[in-house]
Amino acid sequence: MTTADTALYPPERLETVADAVRAQALDVLLLTPGPDLRYVTGYDAKQLERLTCLVVPSSADPFLVVPALELKAAQASPAGDLGVELVTWGETVDPFGIIKGRIGDPHSIALADRMWALHVLQFERAFPRAGKQLASRILSPLRIRKSAAEVAALKEAGEAIDRVHASVPRWLRPGVTERQVGAKIAEAILAEGHVSADFVIVGSGPNAASPHHEVSDRVIQDGDVVVVDIGGTMPSGYCSDCTRTYAVGHAPGDFTAYYEVLQRAQDAATTSVRPGVTAESVDQTARGIIAGAGYGEWFIHRTGHGIGLETHEDPYIVEGNATPLEPGMAFSVEPGIYPGPHGARIEDIVICTDPATGAGYQRMNNAPRDLVIV
Amino acid sequence: MTTADTALYPPERLETVADAVRAQALDVLLLTPGPDLRYVTGYDAKQLERLTCLVVPSSADPFLVVPALELKAAQASPAGDLGVELVTWGETVDPFGIIKGRIGDPHSIALADRMWALHVLQFERAFPRAGKQLASRILSPLRIRKSAAEVAALKEAGEAIDRVHASVPRWLRPGVTERQVGAKIAEAILAEGHVSADFVIVGSGPNAASPHHEVSDRVIQDGDVVVVDIGGTMPSGYCSDCTRTYAVGHAPGDFTAYYEVLQRAQDAATTSVRPGVTAESVDQTARGIIAGAGYGEWFIHRTGHGIGLETHEDPYIVEGNATPLEPGMAFSVEPGIYPGPHGARIEDIVICTDPATGAGYQRMNNAPRDLVIV
Repeated sequence: MTTADTALYPPERLETVADAVRAQALDVLLLTPGPDLRYVTGYDAKQLERLTCLVVPSSADPFLVVPALELKAAQASPAGDLGVELVTWGETVDPFGIIKGRIGDPHSIALADRMWALHVLQFERAFPRAGKQLASRILSPLRIRKSAAEVAALKEAGEAIDRVHASVPRWLRPGVTERQVGAKIAEAILAEGHVSADFVIVGSGPNAASPHHEVSDRVIQDGDVVVVDIGGTMPSGYCSDCTRTYAVGHAPGDFTAYYEVLQRAQDAATTSVRPGVTAESVDQTARGIIAGAGYGEWFIHRTGHGIGLETHEDPYIVEGNATPLEPGMAFSVEPGIYPGPHGARIEDIVICTDPATGAGYQRMNNAPRDLVIV
Repeated sequence: MTTADTALYPPERLETVADAVRAQALDVLLLTPGPDLRYVTGYDAKQLERLTCLVVPSSADPFLVVPALELKAAQASPAGDLGVELVTWGETVDPFGIIKGRIGDPHSIALADRMWALHVLQFERAFPRAGKQLASRILSPLRIRKSAAEVAALKEAGEAIDRVHASVPRWLRPGVTERQVGAKIAEAILAEGHVSADFVIVGSGPNAASPHHEVSDRVIQDGDVVVVDIGGTMPSGYCSDCTRTYAVGHAPGDFTAYYEVLQRAQDAATTSVRPGVTAESVDQTARGIIAGAGYGEWFIHRTGHGIGLETHEDPYIVEGNATPLEPGMAFSVEPGIYPGPHGARIEDIVICTDPATGAGYQRMNNAPRDLVIV
């Protein structure tokens, strides 16, 4: 494991997780490939039909079940340095039976939140007496507070996606399609250091009013508003996510009126972040300004989502989430206004920080938020 | 919906699926985003924590539950043309409650195989009396036989990945790292028409003996054997997957001996494909030749996997799978030999065809299978 790996994925994390399994009186934690497994072991395994699973029993040592043909990959991964037994299974063997043979008949199991139903139902068959819970009960309280190394990884991701946004004005031109712009952006997301382009939204004209539009063959026209919401995953495993709204040639008059409101709401919500403020109050800050200006009915989504090894994770910045923010929490602040025939969204990733070190927040994205006319 | 969409994703498919739900005496089929949802509706929705779900009850019309902010995207997708009711939910509402309010208290539910545990457990809480099954019980028998349009989509994908392999010899040079070659390949996968590069294995030297190695910082050296196993997803939704093994400068003597055996096994297994032959017998054909030459212990994985909207799906070409092949079945034929300090694999996607039209098989990949020395 490299030094960078051990800072991001400290080997002692597995023991912390095992302690949490015992503290929660769970019999066993079962982590198939995905962000939970990577968080605990550093192992970036692919989610496949063949079972790979970290088994963390409350009363025995953890072990990692891997298909025989993944053994060398698992050994070469950071999981290979954890001192965890690697238990392999061949193509014609039942790996659930292997796990059952080792851990017996648990009363309570916790499953990775992203485990496929394919595997959930096989664990259910192997352990018919066990109550099922989500692994997030154990892992979310750990993952929600980012370490200094994780914040550095999110900053690296934010800088990479900011560089992509810096190039977007060169590609947004009347006569090109959203799909063509999206292809340039996807290439740039990789060229700027991500290992994958996870989503590319180029919503032009009326498509700007559809928050989760992706790309289409619509030809961009003079006077269009274009929402560009893009992100990817870095080699570290940590994600970027940043939205800017552009105007092509000129901005419609009714648009500039609400863009100004949106910018003010996004800034006020961001600067309201500090320890002790609740997640929902950050939402309320943005929503209050937008509603006060008469656009409340057009702000049809929550203000944000946590980010880390997943683009969407805890804490969600949404009404009803009374979680008090703590230093190290990382999330998007991305209000939007979508009245049609256009719309706008501004999004930065923000970290809650200790006010003793300055403000109570730190932005991971710093591309200009003033309307960019291209 | 475009003509190409309706050929690949015929609107009448939803009725076929609803009929199968009734025929299996299931109360309801629940499809969250993923290959099953796309197969049934053409809707390429992202899998997110917010619930999107096609609900196909046995005794009422199907409906599609979508987050309010996804409504326009869902309407613009092929699912918008199916005449299916779109039921939206706002950020602070429980979508599982909405579904329960409409379908009551089913006794049996079938869940998309890739549904996240996050949603499986919420459905379990909403429907505590229901027995759970996998949607593949309904969908695999349909998805396993590809239509002419699906075969055309797989052919398009195969030609795209063949073009990437045609460029690989230019990038494999002593002094470059696997990671550098992998980055070129990932770019080329997109440039040749895929929407995503799903996996890039560049296993050089000893890494060639690890079937699921991805890329590393190992520097490629003269005399290395390099296994290159790559694939992506096309705009159609259909996947490519092709492996070739290259030698840099020259091939080690012990390697050429088993490469010849491997090539013979891969060809014999491929040409054994015709309707009525079982999936496991294709595996046995490859395995018999490799074992007969004394390399059996080094062929540590199944011979292949089905492919379509997923890189791995039914039918699996593995011992114990007595499924007789039928025209339209699509799968990889990819034996490998990994004795160390090097290894080799050759993989093509093959379709089982009606012998009345020629052979009983058709290859989707046609890059040269003779050892390429670069």
